[in-house]
Amino acid sequence: MPSNSIQLDDNGKLRHFLSIEGLNPTILNEILDTADSFTSVTDRTIKKVPILRGKTVANLFFEASTRTRSTFELAEQRLSADILSLNVTTSATVKGESLLDTLQNLEAMQIDMFVIRHQDSGSAHFFAQHVRPGVSVLNAGDGQHEHPTQAMLDMYTIRHHKQDFSSLRVAIVGDILHSRVARSQIHALNLLNTAEIRVIAPRTLLPMGTESLGVSVYEDLEQGLEGVDVIIMLRLQKERMRGALLPSEKEYYRKFGLSQERLQLAKPDAIVMHPGPANRGVEIESSVMDGNQSVILQQVGFGISVRMAVMSMIVGQSGLQSGGDA
Amino acid sequence: MPSNSIQLDDNGKLRHFLSIEGLNPTILNEILDTADSFTSVTDRTIKKVPILRGKTVANLFFEASTRTRSTFELAEQRLSADILSLNVTTSATVKGESLLDTLQNLEAMQIDMFVIRHQDSGSAHFFAQHVRPGVSVLNAGDGQHEHPTQAMLDMYTIRHHKQDFSSLRVAIVGDILHSRVARSQIHALNLLNTAEIRVIAPRTLLPMGTESLGVSVYEDLEQGLEGVDVIIMLRLQKERMRGALLPSEKEYYRKFGLSQERLQLAKPDAIVMHPGPANRGVEIESSVMDGNQSVILQQVGFGISVRMAVMSMIVGQSGLQSGGDA
Amino acid sequence: MPSNSIQLDDNGKLRHFLSIEGLNPTILNEILDTADSFTSVTDRTIKKVPILRGKTVANLFFEASTRTRSTFELAEQRLSADILSLNVTTSATVKGESLLDTLQNLEAMQIDMFVIRHQDSGSAHFFAQHVRPGVSVLNAGDGQHEHPTQAMLDMYTIRHHKQDFSSLRVAIVGDILHSRVARSQIHALNLLNTAEIRVIAPRTLLPMGTESLGVSVYEDLEQGLEGVDVIIMLRLQKERMRGALLPSEKEYYRKFGLSQERLQLAKPDAIVMHPGPANRGVEIESSVMDGNQSVILQQVGFGISVRMAVMSMIVGQSGLQSGGDA
Repeated sequence: MPSNSIQLDDNGKLRHFLSIEGLNPTILNEILDTADSFTSVTDRTIKKVPILRGKTVANLFFEASTRTRSTFELAEQRLSADILSLNVTTSATVKGESLLDTLQNLEAMQIDMFVIRHQDSGSAHFFAQHVRPGVSVLNAGDGQHEHPTQAMLDMYTIRHHKQDFSSLRVAIVGDILHSRVARSQIHALNLLNTAEIRVIAPRTLLPMGTESLGVSVYEDLEQGLEGVDVIIMLRLQKERMRGALLPSEKEYYRKFGLSQERLQLAKPDAIVMHPGPANRGVEIESSVMDGNQSVILQQVGFGISVRMAVMSMIVGQSGLQSGGDA
Repeated sequence: MPSNSIQLDDNGKLRHFLSIEGLNPTILNEILDTADSFTSVTDRTIKKVPILRGKTVANLFFEASTRTRSTFELAEQRLSADILSLNVTTSATVKGESLLDTLQNLEAMQIDMFVIRHQDSGSAHFFAQHVRPGVSVLNAGDGQHEHPTQAMLDMYTIRHHKQDFSSLRVAIVGDILHSRVARSQIHALNLLNTAEIRVIAPRTLLPMGTESLGVSVYEDLEQGLEGVDVIIMLRLQKERMRGALLPSEKEYYRKFGLSQERLQLAKPDAIVMHPGPANRGVEIESSVMDGNQSVILQQVGFGISVRMAVMSMIVGQSGLQSGGDA
Repeated sequence: MPSNSIQLDDNGKLRHFLSIEGLNPTILNEILDTADSFTSVTDRTIKKVPILRGKTVANLFFEASTRTRSTFELAEQRLSADILSLNVTTSATVKGESLLDTLQNLEAMQIDMFVIRHQDSGSAHFFAQHVRPGVSVLNAGDGQHEHPTQAMLDMYTIRHHKQDFSSLRVAIVGDILHSRVARSQIHALNLLNTAEIRVIAPRTLLPMGTESLGVSVYEDLEQGLEGVDVIIMLRLQKERMRGALLPSEKEYYRKFGLSQERLQLAKPDAIVMHPGPANRGVEIESSVMDGNQSVILQQVGFGISVRMAVMSMIVGQSGLQSGGDA
């Protein structure tokens, strides 16, 4: 079953949000436009809307995550949802239930929407295939597959600063091989018709056949940064060192770390992004992270708007037209 | 002090909910009727009522529990309560406070209702004896004593499918000896005037004097299942194996596991229940659990309605007459 | 930068609440008066006001604390805030982020108010120095520095029972050296013009230069208790024993434990306080703790009103004039 047919209903409306792959530019743009209306909500004194009032959202985090989990919980609160947050590593599965048993038991509690983060690729799809009609699943990161809300907040950040994707050169730097974030970003940038997508990484951290994804591949950071509008740095998972895929942190920084000097190679108004949490001094120099081209903290806030947007679209409401405070 | 006098006030209204023992059929039926009104609430688009608005419920779980704790929390949210959930194993008692100190400190925070799960039999009664007037205690499972909201959701499920208890044969299968669930069920089935209650278990898992509880005892599963309307399977606590009360999981399944074949011995329209989480392949065959006679997942959802009902009755409101959305 | 200039804005209104040191009597009295209006709120049937409606409060507890954390969470719920509670020991900092990174990431989520407990003295000030305009920080205990909401709930309790500070003798007994609570209390009692503040402790648990704080020092409990109106017992951190600062629990109780007999030395209507959790039989006799001069449990409840007061004043509202239920 193609992702498309499970994520969208017969009218092309969003039902689940599992992967960028399988979606279309219309949906992506609708998410970005809807998020715009919530960015203004979050700037108002009262930040609540009643869109999920009386609905229940379950946050199932099989992997720890402060940033993603916190922004999802805040998005849900601002939409006035009832919230059940389970740290599943320490609860449901302890007594030996399968993932499907866990899902079905929670579903029996009249959960309207599941937000799931899981270490296995495909777990969000698995959930979506098994929930009953009317229940929705949002992927908050599954294995090395996708992290679609992260990609959409990244797209939102880029559009906020650069407007039109069709004239942009975007570089993604780092561990492409293991990154669900990179995978989702590449799909989204392609769907939004980005002029050029570059991936920059040591050969050992590039997946086979990367070129077929519609990107240009650079093994040299300085060549890759030349003239780009957007630089997206990925977090270096330190455990890769042990796996012999990489020599050392110091060596990695020497070859792939984003320094002030290297940043000069990009366009003067290039923006610097990172999904966080960053390793200062490993993939990015501290002064770049805190510098005036960095939009890293802005990404975090936009994450709330984008998550509010996706959840609103799923319940059939785009933004604020339902009106007023909760 | 008999349970009755502590659970009911002078007008016979519910004040605490500690055990099925000591209650009367009128109260039990009122719980089931009130739960009915909430089952329709949970099917509405907006699932909230303002019955506990401005009240504070503290969930004190001294033992882990995903199912019971989640359904209590959802019930409280749907009643619009403020909620304080404490995983007490890792907090209050760490610094060496006694149970009574913990209770009194929380009570000083103007908690209106305590939901307590504790490994010691009698702990909920202990709480109820020490709270001040106007504060209520709900037992979410105490040691090997009782688990009364579980029993009431089971009664609700049975009534939903079978209406009249007075013509029913109900079998409870498994570790009766250590099961607070079984104890509460037997009391409830007796109060509701069930035609026949059978307990089916190996001799080592039967309490002394079981017959005095008004049940018939079977040590043979197949004999016990003959012609019953309802089969309630209990979870096998695997740690019993170590205690030498049981030979092995495989042997247990061979003698007391509910298979498709054995299910044929019950009435054709018999329902299969389990409080969860089930050990597939130990006390119940996977295909029975997922089969069309199983109402196991339905039980979970009914658990929310029943818990909403008990909490509403305690604050003096039966169901929805207080009106409208929160 | 003196604490004063960071805690108050140009109009002398409360902006952060970091330490009692640096505040003035006007602010302290305003907190006590505002708390009064919330004490009546907490006695009403409906305990909610909309003062923090649409605002988000993040509770960052780098140290475990049941009492302080629960009363903050209840205060926030009763003010109708959205709440993000992070047990930071097990989340944000796990991946190696600095305290400043954690702060900035959370701030990017449009948090309006931070409640922070941290093992390092000065951490709350550090936060306050780095948040952007419009964001406030409340200190819920930082290292051995201050615990200002605890001190204010203590002042509230004293005023509730004794009205006028200017005629009171107050004794603080125990580990003054390591106690952030004692430090905050001494500042508050001085600002409120208390007639006499006595600290009673073994020499090893007294900080250097204690006399300069405007207190009288006693190394003999019985002399120190003579004629006092208020006795504040401090928790004995048992780990001090190992550090050789103290001989043994038994010896400590013999010399500094508050027994019924010793309580007779204070005024007949003296009140006994303790920030909790108390070690019964170590710093205080059980019967004193439960006796009719003890106001220890009352302190806990007042803690909610005082925390509601501080948060309300920070958002520019003193008490209930904003009107009605949330």
